Amino acid sequence: MDRYILKVACPDRKGIIAAVTRVVAESGANVLDLTQHTASDVDTFMLKGLFEAPEPFDRKAFDAAFAPIAEEYDMHWSLHAESRRERVAILVSRTNHRLWELLLKHQDDELACDIPVILSNHLINEPVARQFGIPFYHVDYGEGKQKAEARIRKVLDEYKIDLVVMARYMQSLSPEFTRAWENRVINIHHGFLPAFQGAKPYHQAWYKGVKIIGATAHFANEDLDQGPIIAQEVLPVSDRASIRQLVQMGKDVERRTLLHALNLYLSHSVFVYGNRTFVLN
Amino acid sequence: MDRYILKVACPDRKGIIAAVTRVVAESGANVLDLTQHTASDVDTFMLKGLFEAPEPFDRKAFDAAFAPIAEEYDMHWSLHAESRRERVAILVSRTNHRLWELLLKHQDDELACDIPVILSNHLINEPVARQFGIPFYHVDYGEGKQKAEARIRKVLDEYKIDLVVMARYMQSLSPEFTRAWENRVINIHHGFLPAFQGAKPYHQAWYKGVKIIGATAHFANEDLDQGPIIAQEVLPVSDRASIRQLVQMGKDVERRTLLHALNLYLSHSVFVYGNRTFVLN
Amino acid sequence: MDRYILKVACPDRKGIIAAVTRVVAESGANVLDLTQHTASDVDTFMLKGLFEAPEPFDRKAFDAAFAPIAEEYDMHWSLHAESRRERVAILVSRTNHRLWELLLKHQDDELACDIPVILSNHLINEPVARQFGIPFYHVDYGEGKQKAEARIRKVLDEYKIDLVVMARYMQSLSPEFTRAWENRVINIHHGFLPAFQGAKPYHQAWYKGVKIIGATAHFANEDLDQGPIIAQEVLPVSDRASIRQLVQMGKDVERRTLLHALNLYLSHSVFVYGNRTFVLN
Amino acid sequence: MDRYILKVACPDRKGIIAAVTRVVAESGANVLDLTQHTASDVDTFMLKGLFEAPEPFDRKAFDAAFAPIAEEYDMHWSLHAESRRERVAILVSRTNHRLWELLLKHQDDELACDIPVILSNHLINEPVARQFGIPFYHVDYGEGKQKAEARIRKVLDEYKIDLVVMARYMQSLSPEFTRAWENRVINIHHGFLPAFQGAKPYHQAWYKGVKIIGATAHFANEDLDQGPIIAQEVLPVSDRASIRQLVQMGKDVERRTLLHALNLYLSHSVFVYGNRTFVLN
Repeated sequence: MDRYILKVACPDRKGIIAAVTRVVAESGANVLDLTQHTASDVDTFMLKGLFEAPEPFDRKAFDAAFAPIAEEYDMHWSLHAESRRERVAILVSRTNHRLWELLLKHQDDELACDIPVILSNHLINEPVARQFGIPFYHVDYGEGKQKAEARIRKVLDEYKIDLVVMARYMQSLSPEFTRAWENRVINIHHGFLPAFQGAKPYHQAWYKGVKIIGATAHFANEDLDQGPIIAQEVLPVSDRASIRQLVQMGKDVERRTLLHALNLYLSHSVFVYGNRTFVLN
Repeated sequence: MDRYILKVACPDRKGIIAAVTRVVAESGANVLDLTQHTASDVDTFMLKGLFEAPEPFDRKAFDAAFAPIAEEYDMHWSLHAESRRERVAILVSRTNHRLWELLLKHQDDELACDIPVILSNHLINEPVARQFGIPFYHVDYGEGKQKAEARIRKVLDEYKIDLVVMARYMQSLSPEFTRAWENRVINIHHGFLPAFQGAKPYHQAWYKGVKIIGATAHFANEDLDQGPIIAQEVLPVSDRASIRQLVQMGKDVERRTLLHALNLYLSHSVFVYGNRTFVLN
Repeated sequence: MDRYILKVACPDRKGIIAAVTRVVAESGANVLDLTQHTASDVDTFMLKGLFEAPEPFDRKAFDAAFAPIAEEYDMHWSLHAESRRERVAILVSRTNHRLWELLLKHQDDELACDIPVILSNHLINEPVARQFGIPFYHVDYGEGKQKAEARIRKVLDEYKIDLVVMARYMQSLSPEFTRAWENRVINIHHGFLPAFQGAKPYHQAWYKGVKIIGATAHFANEDLDQGPIIAQEVLPVSDRASIRQLVQMGKDVERRTLLHALNLYLSHSVFVYGNRTFVLN
Repeated sequence: MDRYILKVACPDRKGIIAAVTRVVAESGANVLDLTQHTASDVDTFMLKGLFEAPEPFDRKAFDAAFAPIAEEYDMHWSLHAESRRERVAILVSRTNHRLWELLLKHQDDELACDIPVILSNHLINEPVARQFGIPFYHVDYGEGKQKAEARIRKVLDEYKIDLVVMARYMQSLSPEFTRAWENRVINIHHGFLPAFQGAKPYHQAWYKGVKIIGATAHFANEDLDQGPIIAQEVLPVSDRASIRQLVQMGKDVERRTLLHALNLYLSHSVFVYGNRTFVLN
């Protein structure tokens, strides 16, 4: 049996679930887990369903059967074979603790994706990529951001990348880039948006005497730190921690948050509506 | 618009969601939030849906339309008007911190139920009941447990009680009682079943040097501390806490756990399967 | 045996702990629990110690013995008998969920303080005060903030109040007031400073799609929402929560945060340094 | 400036802190952070202090100055240079997720220890050890546990090992071994002692419908799963998780717990008293 994840979003109306699940049942499949939510505040219907289909599953027939209701209800929808792994590229600069975390979890089979390529504006992480047997591309910003980003986008295309993860990439992305890859680039912001913007956020936090630190994973858009939030995690901090320790703890919570967000994305749980997400899981 | 919660459980088969939601849609109602899960390990389908129905909602017509699929799929099912508040009786002995918590949260409109009666084997809490304007019944165990329980069950019937909450009731219930009120009596157990059974659990925990304490809310069955688990909560404890402080913290986590379990029950999120629950929310 | 809490803060130097604990030992007392921390980032020594003293404890002799080292090390210090309960006044407007929480926990013996008086700019909570047998003062702002605050300060003096808790008080305090009561007025801010300032913070949070909400308890200063932070608490929120539910959850986390901060204060664990606190516990 | 950690435990009496900190101050050192706690329930004094000493620090002079008070108060005490890294050996069988976690965190400079050797009763993890440049010893149980353990102890001695971490080692240790290495072998137990003992604990947990899973890190003693507890961590679990997912989540929480316990040990925060620990941090 193959397993598929169906995502549907549309303006709310009566009877959508019945219509959707009837098509699934008529295709011979069985729903194993389904979450539906109507965000009444913005009158929007969202559904995520996991179903088990008999083999061979006739994908074309399913699409044909689904098309009429998709049109009738004005749906955004997608169907994902659980066995099909998303292809994730990593952008990294020098600091590599997030890179390591991703590669290790991946090797340990805790990230259900492929990582076919790593790109960096520094050569320092080439040995890390090699250690894990992953192709590494150096991106040279010497001839300007435009050429560098063209190079990146060419590599992403060649490797048929679905999602880009910024694992501490110290170059901002241009609006052209983030528009072309809208809601397909995950970035991390230290702390809770929009607190402690600017340089040295953990220094600011320490002098403010905060009792909790946190991180936010979000889709990158033009304003790199303001895109739709995917996941947030926090860590209580003791006032006996020094600034240096706060920075270290921040590293840890940022890493966990990135991992959490990536897993939500890979399980097809993230719906984007306007400038926010709805995570259904 | 009225809102209704529909609960369905049955052996798993194809097409159940479509069948269920078609009946809902044909009744003129609109599903706002739905969770479906098939516990594959035991091949059981469960669904909880919240829908909004036009007024007046023809309940009889809905029941008639639902009956055939209920029979076809061998369903346990129930339909709850959100506006209809469950009727909850409280059993309490002397110690009253849980009683206070329940009454206060209720008064503060954070418990969506009615509390029409309080029963106790002590007179000490009569003034508390009076302060909140709730009838109080004294249960005398002097003539034996059988007579006392007969008295309790008579009061529960008179007040048309749906659920009994044991807010620290120091009498065990007979098997006859728990069978008659199966999965309708909530009790609390200190700690994680089955650790630290017997007397003075927090003393045991302290001498063991546990780093986390917790409580378990469950349905009472013949073995009072072993019924289906509804909710569990934990609290990290410092090794600088004394036994006395551990007992105090235990009180706090027990109270939170009871409240959590009660809210899950009142939102119709608790499914019982065999000796375990599935909470869908 | 009486128990005392000693708090000391001063510029860091060698030998302070030895000097302090020598005086304690020579007074015949025994230290039961002590936390010392030097915030190296600002070169400041802080110590909180709990000791047990033989009865009768000669307080004057202790003060006389401590004076020379207090002068030598340029200390801020204080000594608190554990049996002496701080006197806490509550300021409240109409919304009373925080007031209820405080009164209930107090009655349930979980707040180690006296609550000798409640002040409000509305009459609506007078019956609540009466129910708990606490004097209630109405504060009329009709003749201006200056007169109203004079009235408040007179009552606080009459009742020998140590600490003021703003349990949702919808009047700002003047700079004169907060300066006179510096670090002795606790207020609550929804969310993490300085995120989501302005009106309807939970609406803002919902539209931003935050995954965690929180509250901050702090000392009130001229800028009411920016004083030294005492405690912060968070709550993960599901994206299936409506704005209305977010507001409700916010109420809950605000209440818990206030309680937490108050307990830290009452246990003499809060040190203020510049515009931040250090909580040693 | 060098930094040292001083640990002291003894029967409680008056004046111990003053005596201890006087010796520290007279050695020319400055205390930066100190935690003292008297477990009144068992009348035991414990102290952990971090101090900064001028270079060169005369260790012998310190020992000589400390000896008299150590004798007077019947102390167990130890002094650890912060710069001196503990030497940790890893025991592992086939399953290597904990091994990977430890090696990665170590490489990422988040474990303040040396890992000079890995021992295993399987050859399968030799390449992992080689990848991180760590000597690997194969332990053959073919000629009996006694010879195998003699081999292990010989290697531990050769490498001057301070602490052994069982990163999923599927051989029990003999009482001779655990006695010789008392409170110097860390093991992990799934779940909260003593719940769910025996085989397939996560299967048991699933059928019981637990809402929280957890893990316990403890020192191994004769009864491998009952030694003094060092750290416990928990994870809430959804009832929509399958047994397979529960097992996966268990892996994660076990790993985090082991890491936490190891860090507490390495920071010299763990005091053992009878069959429990006190963690002072």
